[in-house]
Amino acid sequence: MSNPFFKNHGPFLISEILKFLNIKVDGISSKQEVLDIKDLYSSNNTDITFFHSKKYKDVAKNTKASYCVTTESLKNDLPKNCIPLVVDNVLISVSKLTSKFYPDSINDDFDDSVIDILKTEFQNKVKCGNNVLIGKNVSIGLNCLIGHNTIIEKNVSIGNNCSIGSNTIIRNSIIKDNVKILDNCVVGKHGFGFFPIDNKNLRYPHIGHVLIEENCEIGCGSTIDRGSISNTIIGKNTYLDNQIHIAHNVKIGKNSVIAGQVGIAGSSIIGNNVKIGGQAGISGHLKIGNNVEIGGGSGVIKNIPDNKKVMGYPAKNIREFLRDSK
Amino acid sequence: MSNPFFKNHGPFLISEILKFLNIKVDGISSKQEVLDIKDLYSSNNTDITFFHSKKYKDVAKNTKASYCVTTESLKNDLPKNCIPLVVDNVLISVSKLTSKFYPDSINDDFDDSVIDILKTEFQNKVKCGNNVLIGKNVSIGLNCLIGHNTIIEKNVSIGNNCSIGSNTIIRNSIIKDNVKILDNCVVGKHGFGFFPIDNKNLRYPHIGHVLIEENCEIGCGSTIDRGSISNTIIGKNTYLDNQIHIAHNVKIGKNSVIAGQVGIAGSSIIGNNVKIGGQAGISGHLKIGNNVEIGGGSGVIKNIPDNKKVMGYPAKNIREFLRDSK
Amino acid sequence: MSNPFFKNHGPFLISEILKFLNIKVDGISSKQEVLDIKDLYSSNNTDITFFHSKKYKDVAKNTKASYCVTTESLKNDLPKNCIPLVVDNVLISVSKLTSKFYPDSINDDFDDSVIDILKTEFQNKVKCGNNVLIGKNVSIGLNCLIGHNTIIEKNVSIGNNCSIGSNTIIRNSIIKDNVKILDNCVVGKHGFGFFPIDNKNLRYPHIGHVLIEENCEIGCGSTIDRGSISNTIIGKNTYLDNQIHIAHNVKIGKNSVIAGQVGIAGSSIIGNNVKIGGQAGISGHLKIGNNVEIGGGSGVIKNIPDNKKVMGYPAKNIREFLRDSK
Repeated sequence: MSNPFFKNHGPFLISEILKFLNIKVDGISSKQEVLDIKDLYSSNNTDITFFHSKKYKDVAKNTKASYCVTTESLKNDLPKNCIPLVVDNVLISVSKLTSKFYPDSINDDFDDSVIDILKTEFQNKVKCGNNVLIGKNVSIGLNCLIGHNTIIEKNVSIGNNCSIGSNTIIRNSIIKDNVKILDNCVVGKHGFGFFPIDNKNLRYPHIGHVLIEENCEIGCGSTIDRGSISNTIIGKNTYLDNQIHIAHNVKIGKNSVIAGQVGIAGSSIIGNNVKIGGQAGISGHLKIGNNVEIGGGSGVIKNIPDNKKVMGYPAKNIREFLRDSK
Repeated sequence: MSNPFFKNHGPFLISEILKFLNIKVDGISSKQEVLDIKDLYSSNNTDITFFHSKKYKDVAKNTKASYCVTTESLKNDLPKNCIPLVVDNVLISVSKLTSKFYPDSINDDFDDSVIDILKTEFQNKVKCGNNVLIGKNVSIGLNCLIGHNTIIEKNVSIGNNCSIGSNTIIRNSIIKDNVKILDNCVVGKHGFGFFPIDNKNLRYPHIGHVLIEENCEIGCGSTIDRGSISNTIIGKNTYLDNQIHIAHNVKIGKNSVIAGQVGIAGSSIIGNNVKIGGQAGISGHLKIGNNVEIGGGSGVIKNIPDNKKVMGYPAKNIREFLRDSK
Repeated sequence: MSNPFFKNHGPFLISEILKFLNIKVDGISSKQEVLDIKDLYSSNNTDITFFHSKKYKDVAKNTKASYCVTTESLKNDLPKNCIPLVVDNVLISVSKLTSKFYPDSINDDFDDSVIDILKTEFQNKVKCGNNVLIGKNVSIGLNCLIGHNTIIEKNVSIGNNCSIGSNTIIRNSIIKDNVKILDNCVVGKHGFGFFPIDNKNLRYPHIGHVLIEENCEIGCGSTIDRGSISNTIIGKNTYLDNQIHIAHNVKIGKNSVIAGQVGIAGSSIIGNNVKIGGQAGISGHLKIGNNVEIGGGSGVIKNIPDNKKVMGYPAKNIREFLRDSK
């Protein structure tokens, strides 16, 4: 699937890519074109991919990509159809290369292409407040409300019967039917992703988007960052209270309830029917099962299986927590 | 007392209410009118009330209401003057019925009735910034300041000598004299109250308001939700730092000091002269006494008597916390 | 160095100051002028200073100030060149006196002196959004972006190549080159500093500013308060995620990384290359060394030496934390 929001500035000749990465590889036909950069699994023979950790060895063996950015020690796990491009730091090289394909995904400067909604096709279709701005590539369904001073920046699709509050900013997001996003939110900005380098960090691209499914509610002052490679997803009928922070690539299931000031760090996956109490925090790259209940104030630092009730910091079985803290 | 902000769409004939709740009760005169829905304590003989938990048995015995939504097992505790209306789920039925009386209290869509302050009676009376919007049923006292892009939505009363910052949104609130509300706050929106139902939660009405007493200060980026049945109250001369979340029905006493990023969950009651350190969280439905000190980062999950100093998660005596954590 | 942003309303005759403080001291020439109020260390013979705690005894002995607000028990530690002005509560008297010298530093009412950027010298120089307001004493470098509805209030210096988001408010701040400040932030407002007094707290002046060094990034919805006497500083190439609160007088070193919803209380000093996980809190007046790593959710309540990794509440050695919590 091509990226719905970020323009692919490719194809690039492989010779140009080699030069860009500052490496030489013998026997490559310099005239071959590379159409896109994708992960090991979804690449096909017109794409370049990357392989940076042993744990992806099995997927690497079956990649269809023609080229792969990787390391000296990993290159032998690639299949014959895939030519290894060996670099010192795979993630930094991939970050730079992704930026070459998708240069618009690096910086989230304010969208200066927006215009007053009263000068757009939406003027009669949307019930809107004062000073509402609309960017390029925006669609809005029927019976929607958009509050005062709200900015729908570029690359936003809003379904039917949605209510957006005032002073809210949205970009690079797909919002399904019957969703409410209250005041002072920021949805769809890039996540907190960069390589720390002394004096000048290197930001990596965020080519994903935010997907908010049907019937969700997002409370005041919340921030939901878009994904870097994958998307950030809020499942159907999941409700978020005020001042919540959802980091990039997080996926939350359906019918979940998340109380005020909760924070979920990057790439964690939350199941269906999950209840999270106020101010709880969930570390990055975790998997929280279905029907899990997490007590207010908890700090979750490991995976939680389905149907468990946890509390504490670090979070443990709630009965144990209450007993130990007597 | 009648509701100051939400219009009562009653009275309704009791026959209409029975039909609405989809129940039948023998021997009720279908022509009797019901004026309002109130709690057990404040109802009188023109009202309908509700009784959903044994702990309200003593109040139920003395209610003056003519009708009461309740369960099969609780109905016998009602006095003779009060006819029980037995339902499966009292709170859901009451929620629906309250919505019937007060339909405007369910959704907090942006207020599209606001107009530019320069077109109102306040244009010469209030020192205001650029792009200030004022809703219906708003009063503002003498010597007040309202910053840029701030929206005073419907149903707000502001006293004398108040200073409201920029980018702030207020509705359904009573703000007394000499109050400061800084930038980017949202005051008076409905709380995080709903019945979780798969695929489509049911929001319950919030017919209360926010009351901020004299001399308070509310820091930047804070959210204070209005009450559902009762009100959310910040007592005299209480100061809130930045990024604080005060949930629905919370009541805070006077001369209290609450540091940054604190969260107080629904219906908790905080005393006078209470000091709460940064990032502390207080669970819902608790009672925190007068002169209590709560250390920064604490998670309070049970009541705290007057004059105690606590810290920790769960919060305990501060000396004990510091000793145990050595 | 004179204050870059707050106008000194002095000099005042010492006789006027004595009257203002409601004290009498024999043998003072009433015609002598006092130019400024400074701390013990930086005062010279035209200034008044203050001395309120034994721990500053050594500095007090060498102060060059001609007058010093102090207590009966401390006054004998002052040198001969410095006349003690004995009061009951040094900090309250100093607060009042600082307010006399710098009356504009007490209240942070919205800046009503701002005008639309299109009516300023910046209209062609800055790429700006809709409804951008600019206050007095503002400078902006080359190649800067300022988003929609953002208010650059009085006393702000912005360097080259800066990108400010939308709905953000900045005052009393120095922002160096290549800084990004994202949406919905408030930078440079006074801190949460006041003397608690029943019924009417007394705010103390904040005559410092916020300094954000080169290459920093500040996430959405963050608040950074300016200093009271000293400044609040974010060092070079330090990145802050969303919803972070930095209190007055905090100083953060360079190349540090601070994840979402972190709070740092007043006057704490954070070193270089420090990493702080999401939702961690740091108490006031602490010193965190260089290369320290603080796990997400931690509550830091004492100093941390260089190179330590800590986690927990209260934070301790991370290995110990993980072991104890098994």
